[in-house]
Amino acid sequence: MEWKQSTVTIESSGGKSILITDQIIAACPDLRTIQVGILHLFLRHTSASLTINENADADVRRDLDMALHHIVPDRLNFRHTMEGRDDMPAHVKSSLMGVSLQIPVSEGRLMLGTWQGIYLCEHRSLGHSREIVCTLYGQT
Amino acid sequence: MEWKQSTVTIESSGGKSILITDQIIAACPDLRTIQVGILHLFLRHTSASLTINENADADVRRDLDMALHHIVPDRLNFRHTMEGRDDMPAHVKSSLMGVSLQIPVSEGRLMLGTWQGIYLCEHRSLGHSREIVCTLYGQT
Amino acid sequence: MEWKQSTVTIESSGGKSILITDQIIAACPDLRTIQVGILHLFLRHTSASLTINENADADVRRDLDMALHHIVPDRLNFRHTMEGRDDMPAHVKSSLMGVSLQIPVSEGRLMLGTWQGIYLCEHRSLGHSREIVCTLYGQT
Repeated sequence: MEWKQSTVTIESSGGKSILITDQIIAACPDLRTIQVGILHLFLRHTSASLTINENADADVRRDLDMALHHIVPDRLNFRHTMEGRDDMPAHVKSSLMGVSLQIPVSEGRLMLGTWQGIYLCEHRSLGHSREIVCTLYGQT
Repeated sequence: MEWKQSTVTIESSGGKSILITDQIIAACPDLRTIQVGILHLFLRHTSASLTINENADADVRRDLDMALHHIVPDRLNFRHTMEGRDDMPAHVKSSLMGVSLQIPVSEGRLMLGTWQGIYLCEHRSLGHSREIVCTLYGQT
Repeated sequence: MEWKQSTVTIESSGGKSILITDQIIAACPDLRTIQVGILHLFLRHTSASLTINENADADVRRDLDMALHHIVPDRLNFRHTMEGRDDMPAHVKSSLMGVSLQIPVSEGRLMLGTWQGIYLCEHRSLGHSREIVCTLYGQT
């Protein structure tokens, strides 16, 4: 049984979802030593999120962000506005999408489906440095 | 410490949520050997989801699907439409609901609440074969 | 490798999100013995949820609940109404937000970000006793 934990910092892009699968795999070099296990990703922020979605067409990322803007409109009567009109919608989107992911590992590889990629979704209007804790555990 | 991983394929029903608790338990015969542990389920797709909800009244499943249709309407101005008008709403719903579940295990049984069941939610208009990776780990 | 499992019961507040970080830490005294690991929280209910969000301003909790009410309006044409008009919206919100959380542990502490707290969100109009299974595992 092996446990490896590391933190990776990724620069997000304001109001956008970006694909970070390659950066996560690069940050977890011990992945290849795990025969059966789990990779757990945890984003240490409350106005961004982690999700898994389609890894091929950039329009999916753009459409996801547009749909989230429809689902959580800025115009709602929010009280928590001291950090700007985009802050509270970002908190809501973060809870809807979630800040942690668990991906099964088999024979040294993430068991993502063919079309699955890992997204970092920035819900604030400006980009930020976002920390992700990667915890890898399983049988070597 | 024991690790067991298997993949189960379930035929989904177009635009519907179905209860799969019994199928998941049947796919994990080693569950009964785990004294304390976790069952992790991971759906390898981007237009369906896994969730936990009420296991008794089929109207809950029907109402959940209806509400998701309200929350993510097909009429939004999506660009990613090459696979049909139902594809991009399905991707959004998949990220809102999520594709992985972790359920605690105690004395050989899932610690689901009395009213909790495992749902496979198909967000495309047609049914598909959906693969779920079941990773069971814990103390025997 | 250590596994500890316990159940904590928390009284929720009708239609509100409350911060439960301190109660969860108090319910997991073995946390301090874990060098690298995971704390998994699982809510055994279908009309409430667990999420991570901003831990400082109570307006964030109030605004989150208001936004959820906008996203899942009571006026939708629900069939499952035998337990009241607030029941089915609560089921939908529970699936959108989720009932489980995984938080990485390092050197005896939860690796929450500076602004992250654990919320118990009650989606029914009245408060309830809500059971959370805490499963802690990792290297001592």
